[in-house]
Amino acid sequence: MFEAHFQTFEEPETGVALTARLAAFREELARRKLSGFVVPRADQQQNEYVPPSEERLAWLTGFTGSAGLAVVLSNEAALFVDGRYTLQAKKQADGKAWAVESLVDPPPESWLEQHLKSGDRLGYDPWLHTTSAAERLAAACTKAGAQLIAVDSNPVDAIWSERPAPPLAPVAVHSLRFAGESEADKLGRIRTEIDKSGADALVLSDSHAVAWTFNIRGADVAHTPLPLSYALVPKDGRPTIFIDHRKLSNSTRDHLEQSADVREPDALTSELTALAQRGATIALDNATAADALSRLVNSAGGKVVRGSDPVTLLKAVKNPTEIAGTRTAHQRDAVALARFLAWVDREAPKGVLTEIDTVEALETFRRETGALKDVSFPTIAGTGPNGAIVHYRVTRKSNRRIQVGDLLLIDSGAQYEDGTTDVTRTIAVGEPTAEMRNRFTRVLRGHIAIARAIFPDGATGAQLDSLARQFLWQAGLDFEHGTGHGVGSYLSVHEGPARISRLGTSPLKRGMILSNEPGYYKTDAYGIRIENLELVIAADIPGAEKPMNGFETLTLAPIDRRLIDVSMLSPGELDWLNAYHARVAREVRGQLDDATKAWLDQATAPLVAI
Amino acid sequence: MFEAHFQTFEEPETGVALTARLAAFREELARRKLSGFVVPRADQQQNEYVPPSEERLAWLTGFTGSAGLAVVLSNEAALFVDGRYTLQAKKQADGKAWAVESLVDPPPESWLEQHLKSGDRLGYDPWLHTTSAAERLAAACTKAGAQLIAVDSNPVDAIWSERPAPPLAPVAVHSLRFAGESEADKLGRIRTEIDKSGADALVLSDSHAVAWTFNIRGADVAHTPLPLSYALVPKDGRPTIFIDHRKLSNSTRDHLEQSADVREPDALTSELTALAQRGATIALDNATAADALSRLVNSAGGKVVRGSDPVTLLKAVKNPTEIAGTRTAHQRDAVALARFLAWVDREAPKGVLTEIDTVEALETFRRETGALKDVSFPTIAGTGPNGAIVHYRVTRKSNRRIQVGDLLLIDSGAQYEDGTTDVTRTIAVGEPTAEMRNRFTRVLRGHIAIARAIFPDGATGAQLDSLARQFLWQAGLDFEHGTGHGVGSYLSVHEGPARISRLGTSPLKRGMILSNEPGYYKTDAYGIRIENLELVIAADIPGAEKPMNGFETLTLAPIDRRLIDVSMLSPGELDWLNAYHARVAREVRGQLDDATKAWLDQATAPLVAI
Repeated sequence: MFEAHFQTFEEPETGVALTARLAAFREELARRKLSGFVVPRADQQQNEYVPPSEERLAWLTGFTGSAGLAVVLSNEAALFVDGRYTLQAKKQADGKAWAVESLVDPPPESWLEQHLKSGDRLGYDPWLHTTSAAERLAAACTKAGAQLIAVDSNPVDAIWSERPAPPLAPVAVHSLRFAGESEADKLGRIRTEIDKSGADALVLSDSHAVAWTFNIRGADVAHTPLPLSYALVPKDGRPTIFIDHRKLSNSTRDHLEQSADVREPDALTSELTALAQRGATIALDNATAADALSRLVNSAGGKVVRGSDPVTLLKAVKNPTEIAGTRTAHQRDAVALARFLAWVDREAPKGVLTEIDTVEALETFRRETGALKDVSFPTIAGTGPNGAIVHYRVTRKSNRRIQVGDLLLIDSGAQYEDGTTDVTRTIAVGEPTAEMRNRFTRVLRGHIAIARAIFPDGATGAQLDSLARQFLWQAGLDFEHGTGHGVGSYLSVHEGPARISRLGTSPLKRGMILSNEPGYYKTDAYGIRIENLELVIAADIPGAEKPMNGFETLTLAPIDRRLIDVSMLSPGELDWLNAYHARVAREVRGQLDDATKAWLDQATAPLVAI
Repeated sequence: MFEAHFQTFEEPETGVALTARLAAFREELARRKLSGFVVPRADQQQNEYVPPSEERLAWLTGFTGSAGLAVVLSNEAALFVDGRYTLQAKKQADGKAWAVESLVDPPPESWLEQHLKSGDRLGYDPWLHTTSAAERLAAACTKAGAQLIAVDSNPVDAIWSERPAPPLAPVAVHSLRFAGESEADKLGRIRTEIDKSGADALVLSDSHAVAWTFNIRGADVAHTPLPLSYALVPKDGRPTIFIDHRKLSNSTRDHLEQSADVREPDALTSELTALAQRGATIALDNATAADALSRLVNSAGGKVVRGSDPVTLLKAVKNPTEIAGTRTAHQRDAVALARFLAWVDREAPKGVLTEIDTVEALETFRRETGALKDVSFPTIAGTGPNGAIVHYRVTRKSNRRIQVGDLLLIDSGAQYEDGTTDVTRTIAVGEPTAEMRNRFTRVLRGHIAIARAIFPDGATGAQLDSLARQFLWQAGLDFEHGTGHGVGSYLSVHEGPARISRLGTSPLKRGMILSNEPGYYKTDAYGIRIENLELVIAADIPGAEKPMNGFETLTLAPIDRRLIDVSMLSPGELDWLNAYHARVAREVRGQLDDATKAWLDQATAPLVAI
């Protein structure tokens, strides 16, 4: 009855073939007179989701996590992953061939300093590293007396005989009805920023930035409607978009040619070289521009200005059309969520559902809205102990039956043309324990503290993060992830520059959309997370002495009342919860079938102070 | 009856003589073939309080604030100050000679880029700037096509005919009974840190660090018991202290010579040069080492490692003896505070007291403890609108009569041998308005949120700062200063590295002492601030999943109950307040006279929820 179109449940491949690949790779390095090579989990644009043709790290090591890096030397090899992936990396990579090491603290560079020998030649593909990353590698090589060598072609590709072709998904125009601002107006604002930076031209090395600027969307990678592409925007004159012509229909091409020239991807290097040879100053994005681009500009005699791509901030601040769209998208999503949560409450206590069943059901309810383009990331559905694994992704092998007494954590989202959603609910199956209710209520109080926060215009996410943690801290508890991330408008569900985190130093601006998702995870027992998306809005405070902001909650789904210990809530917190549930009922009820209506009525009934 | 020994109320000099000084200064620059010169408000060690012999900026410009910088060019001159000093600078400096400009954002370097001409030679005294500051000046000169010239002798000193002599206050041994750790043990820990930094020797360029390491105290500057001095600590072997022999008694010299060689201040440069000539790597403190020191090491062939002086962190973490001492110091201070607050409550409503009267009374009560060494900073006593000036310092001219209906803000502190105190109380004279009570209660709730905070070991002050502001933010209000600063142990009342502020990136470690001082300031009307000192301690939380910390409040003085709107407090906040007042009564009452006891009983009586 239910099925998932946008998510699979397969285990990644492992085993003998991979050992042969590593041996072949070492032979290739020897042919090229390299002592070693660095293989990051990255494409040319540092995308979060990459096409299969760019999964070099997984092909070589077996490790399929979303962040990592391998270093192959002649007699040893190391796979670097962060804390959340240590166990997975040890399971997926052959322990006899690969040492699993730390990706962050210490970083791979410390390992390199110790393992490289004087005179070693360490290779790297300058298209797969940012300039900052390449500089860190070079510094480590220098310390060890070794040399960092930029290669012209990637040695993994040389031996990867069945490498998939790059994706060629059709590109569509993102209608002004959803985008809310014309390409011409966006280019005008971008040019103002280029002018401020002192550059002659800006490279859009981030496909998200190209998609936003030229109002197009694609389907080259999973879960984000990206058209893989580059653009070059001169301070004056017509920009150029670099994109494979096979992705463009005549009408899409017509749309693009109204504001830009369209060329093939490989023309980027020649056009950039020509500009640099005329002595131009080129702005490159710190976060996404490949080191190959700076090398190219510098060697052709141009000047590089490294900084933050101005489009990152421009696209994070949503315009009124995008804001109206996201509200509609969340109301639509709310209908699917209500049907799903009612179904879980009806079926789960029977003890036969599995995690995969819930993923399939939720995607089906969303598909039945008639507007689902994709899920915005693979749904995390973790019951019992699986809920405590923060980045859990269910496979046929890990799939667990939902039992009475479990907490079921479901983190999911949808891509609709009018907006991107991301929501987490934690559901009690059967009677929760007092400890579960206590901890759920602490997480809820943190969530409400963010939702109700009032803060000065210009405040950063770092200034809000502790509000979400304070009630957990009082019990000696915490959660080991940020409180919230930015969200795109029918683009990436993880979008910069702002976030609610100890490290969130970007001001929260009106029109930004951020997640609010505190949690608590008891290893081997259960996980709790409550996530809504929040829109930054002006707060209207009578007598305010400076401009103040607050949040408008976008997500509309009941929070499990059975998990709330009402005696722990302040009057203000209880008021917030009851008002939120009343709003969910008001905005969603009219679009539901009778059975779901009945469920919603009890799920949103006011709680009473004890 | 009352008098102040440690604080004066004089207006700084202004007027005609200063104009002559500027003209003479320009002639001196011309003689030296300099197009301009930079005069910072700084001594060789970047001290907060400087001796009169180092007050070059005040002598030249008339401006007496604690932070600022002047640039004199041949046909114009600018005085750079931060927001809190703009009005004062315009009042004190001759507006015809000096343009008052921004010290922080934009910094003076922006002004220099615009006002320097190509070929200009801008002079600076490398003893009065850190290397980072000199680098910023050099970069600005380069952009303008000008040159930054380090001078061998300061041109202000050349024309400052009545320049005071440098201070020669006697140095005393800081008894182990107060210090709690021997010089030998401290040097052992410092050497471990030098070893980690990879340096051969560390320069203690901060007199606070010298005082802490060698367990001595002095009196060369106001309000901080600093013995102006340097030390050179080699990784192996005996350190050298550089200090004027006239400050040392035989017994102090004997104490120092147990762990170090003692030489005159001018021997620092020769000893450092000798080390550098042998190729040594010298660690210099980012925050206090003069650029002259790096220039000297580099030009003699040594290598400089710039970093944070490890003593800064070591001395911030108080040992058990220092902690016991600070508790005793605060109990002693509490007796003076109770007598003072009782006296204000009795006398102020008569309408004849002035701000200066309160400063004199408070110092007198503290002197009558028999243990007062100095005030830890000039008392801020602002009544009515003066209370809204955050860095107000009363003079005979600004002195204001305390009127019925005023709020009186008193921020003060004491230097005792066993500890340094810093406390602010806001007192209602007569009946406060509802608005005053509302805003006072919001400040109090923020203060209590910090006092009760529980946070993970390793958390920074930046993670706590918003807790103090949240209740003001809800009303569209805020305060424009940090929530708290570190405090020394019979040393500076402003001590790094930790602070409670948006910018506080140092972890709060157990044993650190920080102020907790949220406020609210209504311009031209009144000021509110509530400040206690807090000790970072381990929080004992049953079932905690990670090490947690909290605060022990050190300051013991009633918080004005007449300013509290009890209906705004949560039950937990009310419990904290009543428990705090009960503790103040318990720890202080036994040492008071009968009249003050009677006052204390009503000032600490429990408040009842409405």
